[in-house]
Amino acid sequence: MKDMDDIPAMMQALGRSARDAARALAIAPAAQKTAALMAAADAVWARREEIIEANGKDMAYGRDKGLSDAMLDRLMLDEARIEGICAGLRAVAGQDDPVGEVLAEWERPTGLSIRRVRTPLGVVGVIYESRPNVTADAGALCLKSGNAVILRGGSESFHSSGAIHGCLVEGLVSAGLPQEAIQLVPTRDRAAVAELLTMTDYVDVIVPRGGKGLVGLVQREARVPVFAHLEGIVHIYVDAAADPKMAMEVVLNAKTRRTGICGAAECLLIHRDIADTLGRDLIEMLIAAGVEVRADEGLSGIAGTVPAGAEDWGREYLDSIIAARVVDGVQEAIGHIARYGSNHTDCILTEDAAAVELFFAEVDSAIVMHNASTQFADGGEFGMGAEIGIATGKMHARGPVGAAQLTSFKYQVTGRGSVRA
Amino acid sequence: MKDMDDIPAMMQALGRSARDAARALAIAPAAQKTAALMAAADAVWARREEIIEANGKDMAYGRDKGLSDAMLDRLMLDEARIEGICAGLRAVAGQDDPVGEVLAEWERPTGLSIRRVRTPLGVVGVIYESRPNVTADAGALCLKSGNAVILRGGSESFHSSGAIHGCLVEGLVSAGLPQEAIQLVPTRDRAAVAELLTMTDYVDVIVPRGGKGLVGLVQREARVPVFAHLEGIVHIYVDAAADPKMAMEVVLNAKTRRTGICGAAECLLIHRDIADTLGRDLIEMLIAAGVEVRADEGLSGIAGTVPAGAEDWGREYLDSIIAARVVDGVQEAIGHIARYGSNHTDCILTEDAAAVELFFAEVDSAIVMHNASTQFADGGEFGMGAEIGIATGKMHARGPVGAAQLTSFKYQVTGRGSVRA
Repeated sequence: MKDMDDIPAMMQALGRSARDAARALAIAPAAQKTAALMAAADAVWARREEIIEANGKDMAYGRDKGLSDAMLDRLMLDEARIEGICAGLRAVAGQDDPVGEVLAEWERPTGLSIRRVRTPLGVVGVIYESRPNVTADAGALCLKSGNAVILRGGSESFHSSGAIHGCLVEGLVSAGLPQEAIQLVPTRDRAAVAELLTMTDYVDVIVPRGGKGLVGLVQREARVPVFAHLEGIVHIYVDAAADPKMAMEVVLNAKTRRTGICGAAECLLIHRDIADTLGRDLIEMLIAAGVEVRADEGLSGIAGTVPAGAEDWGREYLDSIIAARVVDGVQEAIGHIARYGSNHTDCILTEDAAAVELFFAEVDSAIVMHNASTQFADGGEFGMGAEIGIATGKMHARGPVGAAQLTSFKYQVTGRGSVRA
Repeated sequence: MKDMDDIPAMMQALGRSARDAARALAIAPAAQKTAALMAAADAVWARREEIIEANGKDMAYGRDKGLSDAMLDRLMLDEARIEGICAGLRAVAGQDDPVGEVLAEWERPTGLSIRRVRTPLGVVGVIYESRPNVTADAGALCLKSGNAVILRGGSESFHSSGAIHGCLVEGLVSAGLPQEAIQLVPTRDRAAVAELLTMTDYVDVIVPRGGKGLVGLVQREARVPVFAHLEGIVHIYVDAAADPKMAMEVVLNAKTRRTGICGAAECLLIHRDIADTLGRDLIEMLIAAGVEVRADEGLSGIAGTVPAGAEDWGREYLDSIIAARVVDGVQEAIGHIARYGSNHTDCILTEDAAAVELFFAEVDSAIVMHNASTQFADGGEFGMGAEIGIATGKMHARGPVGAAQLTSFKYQVTGRGSVRA
């Protein structure tokens, strides 16, 4: 907590020590990283009362600040949630270590044998909002992938994140790894974020976790690469050849299972030929489930709909609201998504293989789905064990970002005294 | 050539049309791209006199500007070199198309089937210096990988690049692809470069090809990702357990085959135990081959060496000069490379497997080599067919950048009406 008067100098020092720790981590054996994660899980459980006490301070601060009930719920830690944090740490510990994995291997006529091998990226910066469990999740994924991490939690979760971070450090130390491998910015001062985003010498990539305000700020201000998605404007196109029963189940799940996650459906595109049959059934089902349906002229005759305005296309509600419009076919659906989508997750419901092929090829999103709920857009559901976020950019990582996506690679070339002609 | 008064507006228009062309290219069948490349090769050969005439204008301009003989040689095109350009275009045409390649495929217990499939990046900007053949090479690699490209050639090669670009456009048009897929900035005005580096809406990645001045400028000023290497400060560590005959051959080739390429050796690190035996032989051999050897105290007793100064460590000569010093072993060699290297290519010569393992794990370079000449640091030698450059960063591409490294990916998820619990 020293040097608090000079935030840039403090952050530079933090960055330098992260860079040093990254060098040690890059060559740490898999077993050592696993041991650190298991010990951290043990420490979190052993120190649960201390964590809950720290969380109590944050909850009081949050209530004073007038946080919404939803925000307070995200912030709250109890024994069950702490058990979840421990389980998460152990799950990451149990994953395969990505570092050193041979991605490709080939021989050349010159006698060279070439291997492409996974390496860590270096130093990851993670900036997040109120959920204190991100401290453990992000710290664990970065450690697994051999990266040092600088964590910057939300000011609301300052004490909770600090207590969890203490347990991660206990795990590192007990396994003989440098404690600077997982650092938490020790101040609520926002100047620390500005510094973190521009420390190109010490930070290789920034991952923001939070709302559009935070992500937009990071994308605008960062001078290092960013893995993020600004919005999940998720479309479902219901084709004329959709299976009606399947469409009803998938659309209901995609919109209503949880409305606040980035994979929740925000816009329904319905083929003109079925607008009055399956389309009507879908919309009536959604309205019956408590969803506000903002419909274009083609669907506005359906009782209970609200007329859609121009601002409803390309809008992320994160709420029990969905936009709906009629399209002439898969090509128009693709055009609508190109214009209004956010390159996150988009889905086609159909039994027509040619339509699927077109949709899969032409929709330029990180995840394209066929006959599946868009709520599956998640690293855990993809089998990655855990995710640090979902990226909609095309550089390096795309879609759910797990431990493997936090790596780079190098070429290891072996010759037999080979010289170039 | 219109709108030349308003460079930013012209570049924005160029970017917009590149973005549109990229959408068409992303879904173009492999055969169509191949046809365009083959037709472009035919056009280059058919129009060789026109190209040589255009090159004549550039050569006259270059002589007036007082370009060095080496620079003029890089600029010069004759029938043999044009044949080389055609061969390059046909070689890229013959490569496998990376777009659509299934990188991974797996099933989930939920019934989801997930495929990770290669997609183009979008729009690539290539900024290069005097070699006019880069126009064809870079244009071809970007087209192969389904990316639109904006080429900005050196002012010296303005007419030559324009003539070659005309042939590429002829190829695109004859194959029914948008001619905006390969665009050449139609002005020598440097304001166009500043604009290209900051068009984040229209350019996904910039690849600079040229000297340290150009690459440094691009790395400093770009607001989009850059695939590049600033320098190739290539080290060869000769271990105590090196095979002497092999070491002699590899070191000679690595330093002298061509001194001006980024894979040329710039620093020799010699194990103390052999400094006076193999070390002496290596240095005497290099001196006999006309190389100036700048030696530290441990080697300065060898006749013909020049004393090394502090500025000789971490220096890229690109000339018949090499720095040489004694180290206590592989660990000190790794430390020297960490401090002075450029993360490009570094090599160990030894018969000791443990030393190789340490060197391969701990040297943080795009390419680490064992018992092979560093002059193999090249996309063609790696079997990539061609390269647009070599990257020393860790984000997205690393090492030689071929067509596959100019791609991203998407997840194609197929369900059976799957909903998330």
